[in-house]
Amino acid sequence: MAAPPSDVYSRIEASFRKQTVMTTLGAELVLAEQGRVSIRLAYRDDLTQQNGYLHAGIVSTIADSACGYAALSALPQGHEVLTVEYKINLLSPAKGTAFRADACVIRSGKTLSVCRAEVFAEQDGNETAIAAMTATIFAVAERS
Amino acid sequence: MAAPPSDVYSRIEASFRKQTVMTTLGAELVLAEQGRVSIRLAYRDDLTQQNGYLHAGIVSTIADSACGYAALSALPQGHEVLTVEYKINLLSPAKGTAFRADACVIRSGKTLSVCRAEVFAEQDGNETAIAAMTATIFAVAERS
Amino acid sequence: MAAPPSDVYSRIEASFRKQTVMTTLGAELVLAEQGRVSIRLAYRDDLTQQNGYLHAGIVSTIADSACGYAALSALPQGHEVLTVEYKINLLSPAKGTAFRADACVIRSGKTLSVCRAEVFAEQDGNETAIAAMTATIFAVAERS
Amino acid sequence: MAAPPSDVYSRIEASFRKQTVMTTLGAELVLAEQGRVSIRLAYRDDLTQQNGYLHAGIVSTIADSACGYAALSALPQGHEVLTVEYKINLLSPAKGTAFRADACVIRSGKTLSVCRAEVFAEQDGNETAIAAMTATIFAVAERS
Repeated sequence: MAAPPSDVYSRIEASFRKQTVMTTLGAELVLAEQGRVSIRLAYRDDLTQQNGYLHAGIVSTIADSACGYAALSALPQGHEVLTVEYKINLLSPAKGTAFRADACVIRSGKTLSVCRAEVFAEQDGNETAIAAMTATIFAVAERS
Repeated sequence: MAAPPSDVYSRIEASFRKQTVMTTLGAELVLAEQGRVSIRLAYRDDLTQQNGYLHAGIVSTIADSACGYAALSALPQGHEVLTVEYKINLLSPAKGTAFRADACVIRSGKTLSVCRAEVFAEQDGNETAIAAMTATIFAVAERS
Repeated sequence: MAAPPSDVYSRIEASFRKQTVMTTLGAELVLAEQGRVSIRLAYRDDLTQQNGYLHAGIVSTIADSACGYAALSALPQGHEVLTVEYKINLLSPAKGTAFRADACVIRSGKTLSVCRAEVFAEQDGNETAIAAMTATIFAVAERS
Repeated sequence: MAAPPSDVYSRIEASFRKQTVMTTLGAELVLAEQGRVSIRLAYRDDLTQQNGYLHAGIVSTIADSACGYAALSALPQGHEVLTVEYKINLLSPAKGTAFRADACVIRSGKTLSVCRAEVFAEQDGNETAIAAMTATIFAVAERS
């Protein structure tokens, strides 16, 4: 990418790199702009449930981080976020060569934000929605 | 253990072993009896979020499997389970040397079961409840 | 309306009229087409919580029915629906002269459908999103 | 009741009386002590869904208030509560002569509390669990 990444992207990426689980799973931050964040994960057969599909907890892991970072992207600098709770509906088996969680903010508040994520499975150039999450995110001012 | 494992335990364990993500994370099936299943995971610093706590998605991974297997444990043989949806509240930071998800069935149905899990962090001989999940589980007859 | 109502509208309305709580609350079915249903409720000061806002349970009542009917609208004739579970985030105080729950289907299945609703408060010609729901709906073939 | 009601009960009851919807539905506060609140509602055929069962939204209304008041009961005086979100699983049809929502606190925090409620249907001296709720409650200091 020739152009320098936006401030939003840099802030999100700095936190993303501290989430060691993202490296362990091989997840990538593919989009981070004001109010919208996407995280992508390639299929790995060591992350599955009993039928060979990506485990719902791993689907949740990328969707939860995408929601948290979407909330963070809409807050002023100097904040951190924590997930209060989330709910995920598994719409279809998590079957594909890669998975992408697209999150957006539906309410941005000083203390609480609400975000939604949809997770898509990619296969043979097609995308299928496999999960829908709603998350409540708590904002905390960073200790400096 | 001198006594042979119960039928319930054997059935659950057989499926648990097929969940490759459990091996990848180092999770163990520590209890599986009629209506109750517990899964335990030792802390690993490659499974954390940005503050060094276990990532909520990983907490969910063991809680979701515990819920699914609790539902399975209450069904007649020859069934498999799929998670329809779950909701998790993160009660405290996932800080500890190990984590245990204890799930139980609150409704067992032919098609749909509802399970609850609590996740505890273990540290210095103490246990703290860090998360509470409610999950809806779908039962499918195994193809033979 | 000069044009005759669609089949979908007639089917939904027939069931809506059997929901006695809708009449009791004064809720109206304002839209019912394939995959989308809206229900509207005028503010009443006998339906509030302690601050004079519409009670979250009443907000849920119209959103839940809108979700159920959105699911029903996407099923073949001869089905009924039951709510398995729902989750609602209250985004802002339910303050307004009227409220409208707009639901749509995000997964339509033979047994289970997943719907989303957003609830808007109307005041002085403006609309504010006050709640977001995700619901899992069970389809049952009507006994004839 | 010969003994004077506890402080907790008085505080909760004062707020309960301001919830006009409780009077409209005919709901009663039947228990309010530190960390535990129960609300009861007699069956009424003008509060049903299409099959004559109590509408899930009305079940939610008493469960949500019970959760909010359970959270309030565990806070120091001078606070009010608002529901952030809740999730309810409908376990069985809401069929009975009366319904009781029993809520308890599972996490009490300065800003956020988490409560659970179970709703029971009463019929012929038996009780059936018909719903399970988890709610996140926000505490605000009352303006004086």
